[in-house]
Amino acid sequence: MGKRRHSRAAGHGLLRPVPFTRVEIDDCFWAPRISANRTETLAAVHRGLKETGRIGAFKLDWKPGQPNKPHIFWDSDVAKWLEAASYTLAAHPAGTLARQVDEVVTLVVRSQQPDGYINSHFSTVEPDKRWTNLRDNHELYCAGHLMEAAIAHFQATGQRRLLDALCRYADYIGSVFGTGAGQKRGYCGHPEIELALVRLYRATRKTDYLALARYFVDERGRKPNYFEFEARGRGEDPAGHFPLSYYLAHAPVREQREVTGHAVRAMYLYSAMVDLAGEACDAGLLETCLRLWKHATDRLLYVTGGIGSSRHNEGFTSDYDLPNDTAYAETCAAIGLVFWSHRMLALTGEGRFADVMERALYNAVASGVSLDGRRFFYENPLASDGRHHRQEWFGCACCPPNVARLLASLGGYIYSEGEREVAVHLYVAGSAKISASGQDIALRQETLYPWDGRVRITVESSRPARFAMRLRKPGWCVKPRVAVSGSRVAGRLGRGYLVIDRVWKPGDRIDLCFPTPARRVYANPLVRADCGRVALERGPIVYCVEGADNGAALESLSLARKARLSAMFEGDLLRGVVTVTCPAAKISALGWKDELYRNRPGRARKVTLKAVPYCVWDNREPGEMLVWIREDR
Amino acid sequence: MGKRRHSRAAGHGLLRPVPFTRVEIDDCFWAPRISANRTETLAAVHRGLKETGRIGAFKLDWKPGQPNKPHIFWDSDVAKWLEAASYTLAAHPAGTLARQVDEVVTLVVRSQQPDGYINSHFSTVEPDKRWTNLRDNHELYCAGHLMEAAIAHFQATGQRRLLDALCRYADYIGSVFGTGAGQKRGYCGHPEIELALVRLYRATRKTDYLALARYFVDERGRKPNYFEFEARGRGEDPAGHFPLSYYLAHAPVREQREVTGHAVRAMYLYSAMVDLAGEACDAGLLETCLRLWKHATDRLLYVTGGIGSSRHNEGFTSDYDLPNDTAYAETCAAIGLVFWSHRMLALTGEGRFADVMERALYNAVASGVSLDGRRFFYENPLASDGRHHRQEWFGCACCPPNVARLLASLGGYIYSEGEREVAVHLYVAGSAKISASGQDIALRQETLYPWDGRVRITVESSRPARFAMRLRKPGWCVKPRVAVSGSRVAGRLGRGYLVIDRVWKPGDRIDLCFPTPARRVYANPLVRADCGRVALERGPIVYCVEGADNGAALESLSLARKARLSAMFEGDLLRGVVTVTCPAAKISALGWKDELYRNRPGRARKVTLKAVPYCVWDNREPGEMLVWIREDR
Repeated sequence: MGKRRHSRAAGHGLLRPVPFTRVEIDDCFWAPRISANRTETLAAVHRGLKETGRIGAFKLDWKPGQPNKPHIFWDSDVAKWLEAASYTLAAHPAGTLARQVDEVVTLVVRSQQPDGYINSHFSTVEPDKRWTNLRDNHELYCAGHLMEAAIAHFQATGQRRLLDALCRYADYIGSVFGTGAGQKRGYCGHPEIELALVRLYRATRKTDYLALARYFVDERGRKPNYFEFEARGRGEDPAGHFPLSYYLAHAPVREQREVTGHAVRAMYLYSAMVDLAGEACDAGLLETCLRLWKHATDRLLYVTGGIGSSRHNEGFTSDYDLPNDTAYAETCAAIGLVFWSHRMLALTGEGRFADVMERALYNAVASGVSLDGRRFFYENPLASDGRHHRQEWFGCACCPPNVARLLASLGGYIYSEGEREVAVHLYVAGSAKISASGQDIALRQETLYPWDGRVRITVESSRPARFAMRLRKPGWCVKPRVAVSGSRVAGRLGRGYLVIDRVWKPGDRIDLCFPTPARRVYANPLVRADCGRVALERGPIVYCVEGADNGAALESLSLARKARLSAMFEGDLLRGVVTVTCPAAKISALGWKDELYRNRPGRARKVTLKAVPYCVWDNREPGEMLVWIREDR
Repeated sequence: MGKRRHSRAAGHGLLRPVPFTRVEIDDCFWAPRISANRTETLAAVHRGLKETGRIGAFKLDWKPGQPNKPHIFWDSDVAKWLEAASYTLAAHPAGTLARQVDEVVTLVVRSQQPDGYINSHFSTVEPDKRWTNLRDNHELYCAGHLMEAAIAHFQATGQRRLLDALCRYADYIGSVFGTGAGQKRGYCGHPEIELALVRLYRATRKTDYLALARYFVDERGRKPNYFEFEARGRGEDPAGHFPLSYYLAHAPVREQREVTGHAVRAMYLYSAMVDLAGEACDAGLLETCLRLWKHATDRLLYVTGGIGSSRHNEGFTSDYDLPNDTAYAETCAAIGLVFWSHRMLALTGEGRFADVMERALYNAVASGVSLDGRRFFYENPLASDGRHHRQEWFGCACCPPNVARLLASLGGYIYSEGEREVAVHLYVAGSAKISASGQDIALRQETLYPWDGRVRITVESSRPARFAMRLRKPGWCVKPRVAVSGSRVAGRLGRGYLVIDRVWKPGDRIDLCFPTPARRVYANPLVRADCGRVALERGPIVYCVEGADNGAALESLSLARKARLSAMFEGDLLRGVVTVTCPAAKISALGWKDELYRNRPGRARKVTLKAVPYCVWDNREPGEMLVWIREDR
């Protein structure tokens, strides 16, 4: 892959994502989740934020000795909820949610200090500690999330007051940080502000924000290391609890050759790097991103799209170290992978990025929230002895509002548009208003995806228009079929997309068929945890076995390699899912009495294994769960 | 199993262990380890104790601000070394070791307070905190280890000064604790003093010590709970970091129905309970021990004889929860299991207790120290990714001196003697002086056990003597053969022993043959971690595969169920071991390139798997290790 093509693809890209405000989703998979997100999750998160004092903290009236002492990362929780709520308001502008948003916006705006600073912790608890510990204190991280919330709020409501406040805050940050005389040469221990500043630039076209984002990215990891310098300034040992790689600050970002550290931090930083590579046609930075992408997806990716295997650093360990029962795979990290993938896709147009985005969305992200929208996974292991369950709230409450903002803006990940091109990245029933060849075009997707691989796309326009329709061939699909208005067409395959370049007449129908047999997946033998095991997939869905369907002792189950997999839609199960069944063997515990060890193996009896989508596990009675099932050769 | 038999077996038992001072070991397995223990381990531990200030702490001259602040459990480390060194002095009385022992004994004796109290931490660091936190502060635990050291020192040297000091300390403890007016009704968070007091009673015949041991055991776990009472007295929340079951103080010991808590604490407590059951013919207490034994060995025992699967509580979790890579299986816990097993064996005469003792000794205990005697495992996992290695020292240095005292007194676990009976529990080449039928008898064992199952025992006495020879039939042996002076005899099988009751003439030879084919072992299917896996054993030895013999990616190896196991003695390998080989399959990583997942399974290629004894792993270059190997049905 040459630099030339990437630099051509860079800039604003040939294709721009179609914003979620022009996309409607009415499919069987996401629409109910987006609805539960609006009616349940946003209310539950708001309640959590309110009850724990996170919203009230912006009144800046906390005094020592009082409860609910504002914590350094509280503002980010409120900001992510505000962002999610704003996205939701764009489609449903009235009601309780609008009042709640208004109240929070008012509090945040009023909390702004005369110099522009906004932070509920440092304005009350430690006013003398502002900008003294960028490594640990999440100040710029919180600022970044507030910027994203402000942009969402402006775009949803047209109101400028939060956006203006955050622009003032960004201007102030720009005066504090940089390479100029008297400026601090710091950057945040938890990346986030970098991508937020690019978004702020795109919303306001003020190039200072882009330059500040670039400063934060380029300064990161330079020698002498700012975090060490800063720790010495506080009179502390510069060697902190975590190594610099945990913060992605062990080397300048362009010299980082491997994915490392805290998974969410890595994803947010890499996302900003792609943004900057695109804005500046920076082929070198894009090469760095491509190299890191390859490392992440060739060595560190769970089959569910989860990343960051270790609880210790909430992040990455060594190549192929992908334990299942102790998998951390934080929901926020999978969301971060969606952000990164989507940006890589936007910049390169290559389907492999959409493949990973789809894998993460339908599996590791969707598992993050219960079907009723009220309970959340922080960790998404691939095996459970029955003791791992979603919770209503967390002391570190990053995941619930993060999944809320992604679901509320999911429409923005489905399509892209360009001068003479339209791309469909995800197959989600619904419609979109798109601009191509100088006219407004309405696309309508009809499909039961992900349960069925047939998709009909109808093109509605006032007059014929010539453009290339780029239809993603899912990486899991071997032989796609495509027809236009009833006639089979070959289509050119380019960068993972079926390209049909023609004059589209009003009412033209594209019929896609991606056959979805249930299939077996094997991990590279270097993945210790998955040797001798098989996972089941169908379409974009990764399956698991649960105690509710298979009884206890799931490890005693095994599949014969040649046993036939069957798939069936069960409308009454888990709000409607396709299940996969297969003849299997189960080592019987009968006849063992109290023996713990013996020289004769246990008898295997024939059973039928039933697998359900991983993303819906733990929505029934508590029990064991397993993704990688033992396989008999 | 009726109460009658146990009460008959109780009291002093029909058989008394033959003390190690009358046993000589010159076998191929233990003798080199005992030699390394004497020449290397004792010196290394002494150096560690000295350098970290543990020995110097008994000078009681530590002042605030100085380094090497005496820690609450330091005395126990010194005590266990002193005990081990004393045992060693019994056979090798002169030299450096004798001088080192003398120096330490002098320091300990001089550190005794006027009231009898001995503790290097509380006499210097927190003199006002004596007996204020029995739950956490290890005071009585340290006292117990000092008592064991004093008994060993007296028995090795005939000197009374340390024993007298510890008797004074025990008398003082007896004045502080008990149910009398003004006495504290406490007991130690870490059991140890209970079994030490029984030993002190047996060494001195002073019944007060037996009564005090009984008080500590019986008071434990009574309501109101002393640890909670004591915490309130310190103004602390009575709910500590760990539940009361961690300390085995959640219920009176006779009501404890399941093994729980910290593994070493459990083993030391249970050992004292067996001692007390025996001393008082207490059938009820013995029933409790038998019940706990059954739970431990039916549900919680690693195949290596390791116990206590969790690092969190250094102890037990739930039934069948025996993870391999995260197995804690502390060396001290396996040693504690040997203590408990040996006492159960002494009291009941049943071979099943010797079976577990042998399993722990040859595997989980022997693995605790390197072949050169210089490095130690604290944790003994059953699988390693190559990063687990023995260390020279630990901040909490309990394991090295504990393994040292067991090895130095190992001779005491081999034989028992009674009026008209002699029992051989372990097959270890060497000799013993035994008393039976009123005369002194010399037994000589010639064998290459554990590498070979043939054992010749020669009986030497001045005149014929009638007694029953009880020869343990190892639980792993299916068809033993036995001959006396060349003539095959049937022998009666009783309680796991071949019993030959006859008049033994001087020079009579018993030839035992326990066939030792390598064999497969399977775990109960309720052990999640071992489903679809097999372990290899031969004689008392549990095997493992190591990277040094099998390359990396051990999880990619699998054995066909019917594949033939071969065994061979390799004199040059790991100081001489029998290895087990077997044709196996290995999933090849070739042809995977950079794919992390794919729909085609990896190709299996034929290899020869080579397994070495678990106890000698990590004595070569660092690499992976695995006990439970995948098996193809």
